[in-house]
Amino acid sequence: MTHTSLPHDLALRGVDGGTIILVVLDGLGGLPHPNTGRTELESAATPNLDALAARSSLGMIMPVAEGITPGSGPGHLSLFGYDPVTSMIGRGVLSALGVGFDLRPGDVAARLNLATVDDAGVVTDRRAGRPSDEEGQRVVDKVLAVIRPPDGVEVTLIHEKEHRVVLVLRGEGLGADLEDTDPQRTGLKPVPVTATDPASAATAEMIQGLLDQVEEILVEEPQANSFLARGFAQFSPYPSFEERYGLGAVAVAKYPMYRGVASLVGMTVDGVPGSNEETVGVLEGHYGDYDFYFVHFKDPDSLGHDGDFEGKADAIADVDALLPRITALNPDVLIVTGDHSTPALYREHSWHHVPALIASKWARPSAEEFGEAACRGGDLGVIPGKVLRSLALAHAARLEKYGA
Amino acid sequence: MTHTSLPHDLALRGVDGGTIILVVLDGLGGLPHPNTGRTELESAATPNLDALAARSSLGMIMPVAEGITPGSGPGHLSLFGYDPVTSMIGRGVLSALGVGFDLRPGDVAARLNLATVDDAGVVTDRRAGRPSDEEGQRVVDKVLAVIRPPDGVEVTLIHEKEHRVVLVLRGEGLGADLEDTDPQRTGLKPVPVTATDPASAATAEMIQGLLDQVEEILVEEPQANSFLARGFAQFSPYPSFEERYGLGAVAVAKYPMYRGVASLVGMTVDGVPGSNEETVGVLEGHYGDYDFYFVHFKDPDSLGHDGDFEGKADAIADVDALLPRITALNPDVLIVTGDHSTPALYREHSWHHVPALIASKWARPSAEEFGEAACRGGDLGVIPGKVLRSLALAHAARLEKYGA
Repeated sequence: MTHTSLPHDLALRGVDGGTIILVVLDGLGGLPHPNTGRTELESAATPNLDALAARSSLGMIMPVAEGITPGSGPGHLSLFGYDPVTSMIGRGVLSALGVGFDLRPGDVAARLNLATVDDAGVVTDRRAGRPSDEEGQRVVDKVLAVIRPPDGVEVTLIHEKEHRVVLVLRGEGLGADLEDTDPQRTGLKPVPVTATDPASAATAEMIQGLLDQVEEILVEEPQANSFLARGFAQFSPYPSFEERYGLGAVAVAKYPMYRGVASLVGMTVDGVPGSNEETVGVLEGHYGDYDFYFVHFKDPDSLGHDGDFEGKADAIADVDALLPRITALNPDVLIVTGDHSTPALYREHSWHHVPALIASKWARPSAEEFGEAACRGGDLGVIPGKVLRSLALAHAARLEKYGA
Repeated sequence: MTHTSLPHDLALRGVDGGTIILVVLDGLGGLPHPNTGRTELESAATPNLDALAARSSLGMIMPVAEGITPGSGPGHLSLFGYDPVTSMIGRGVLSALGVGFDLRPGDVAARLNLATVDDAGVVTDRRAGRPSDEEGQRVVDKVLAVIRPPDGVEVTLIHEKEHRVVLVLRGEGLGADLEDTDPQRTGLKPVPVTATDPASAATAEMIQGLLDQVEEILVEEPQANSFLARGFAQFSPYPSFEERYGLGAVAVAKYPMYRGVASLVGMTVDGVPGSNEETVGVLEGHYGDYDFYFVHFKDPDSLGHDGDFEGKADAIADVDALLPRITALNPDVLIVTGDHSTPALYREHSWHHVPALIASKWARPSAEEFGEAACRGGDLGVIPGKVLRSLALAHAARLEKYGA
């Protein structure tokens, strides 16, 4: 028997507990349609999720704190059982992990946007006209060909997609207490790189030097002639999922950011699905090799951002149609929830609680439908996202009893 | 008026508040029967509890933390208003208090099991064939007759029941950071007494010496020829119930462990009932002499452990039949709940929330039935077990208003 010390004195029972699948429908939670009073999830055709709900404990997830709208990083960390406040991560680190860069402790990363500045140095387009992937890559290559790194520091620039670029600095004594240079709106000059802590002052100077070089290199470019930086963050690895929970874990996600946050907590990332069907296919391919499977579906969030109520409901129904292939794997514990709400009426991430179900032999069912109304009357009550971790382990019979 | 400083800024109003009865049905919470969808409590014939629920605030108790399965000690400490994590107690201390031993601060206690080891020193039966009480007492007396205590240390051995024995050491400078010697399964030798902290190293050596003596003394015994030790714990008294809440409290429980945990927080233990009827009789006998009455019924838990769904429902109905004698006492506040769930389908303590009712003049009733479904829709929501304390004091009009 292996005993691993866990926060809150969780004690793992051993390594032979049940298998857990966590299905995340990004931005799942919604708001009621004015005509019907039903949310996107409640409006969607979800016969399979409804049948699953009928044998599940239901509840509502509060990802970070009441009234707090989570970004994708904190939303997922919370579902993985990490306190999203104390283990907050910067966008730069997430992005670097998302593009598969092998970050090491101490590396400083930032998200860069290709932008357009005019002759006076004023930002006229914060996204440089949203260049194509090819165009974005061409500009980054042009910079890489001639940029001179500061002494003793390795500089990596990776083109991510369209106007999005990732910057990583590797070297001794770097700091990431740096303010964004993105002025957040056009008509202003980029903010000079500013350290908010003396330990980051040297790094601020290095990065300002790099950004100045970039403007020289790109001076002839009509659109993409500047970089705006944000989300500076220094990488320090998390206690891994396996260390904390004794669970060998794998992540299956189409989008890099979600693979990034999964790899941050030490989940294996093996395979990049190109569609929802392929996502389930990769899961099926891995099934049996791990204890914990994180499966991510992005579309409900994207359509929520678009304000497309029907589209978001359809995106949920699309995942529902694939659910029988997931339940056919017969996991001991199957959790379905979201990392936050993205109500189509709100068109952004929101602070609203997120419906959740935990299907297992030990569930206390309370309704025949998966939706906000059913979940708010469920047995779990309203729970912080991070306690899903304890509940999943409990339903998988992986926790010791606490005390005599 | 007496003002006592309480955790979480509770201020007591005075000593002339209402009387509180806390009825604990051990292991009350359950899981739905596959054929009916109703839990043990929901299946039981409970006309009196249902009538009481109709004039109560209902809710669900989370004894320790989400997903955490409590032992009986933490489960009860939580119901008494003590944080079950920061005030964790070892099994040894609970057992010693349970047999009525007058523990003093610094005493080190452990649970011993009579066991059988073979000639090679390998454990062949961790309970020595479950000896009768007489047989267990005979073996303990044989050890007591000749065992030599370490210098300056008083050694007490008390036979509890069958194979269960309690060990207490009293002396200067003892420590209890010691690992169990019980190897948890047969086919292994007992684990040598090992200190996990240098301050307990001397105690480890003393106890190993005692266990070695025991094997010599019992060498001719065919079955009970060894002791396995677990749950080493050092006693430090808790702030008492009376100090914290201004409540003179008495405990009425048939089983020693529950009297033990009650005496740990300073409740009076006066009378040992032999049955449920006698339990109510002892309560009736005390009634009027105290402010707080803790009344414990064990059977629902025992039958849950047996996996006996119908039996557990009947055990709940048996308590229900006695309820009119309790309500006839007319307490200002009557609470009925459990210390944890023991679903018959799960056959163990579990992490599931526990139904609770608070009957008082100031209740907000919401259903005509006492059960998981009714309580999950109740006015209290899901509450940590330890806040029952504040609610009981509030319903008994014993708390000051907070702020002007």
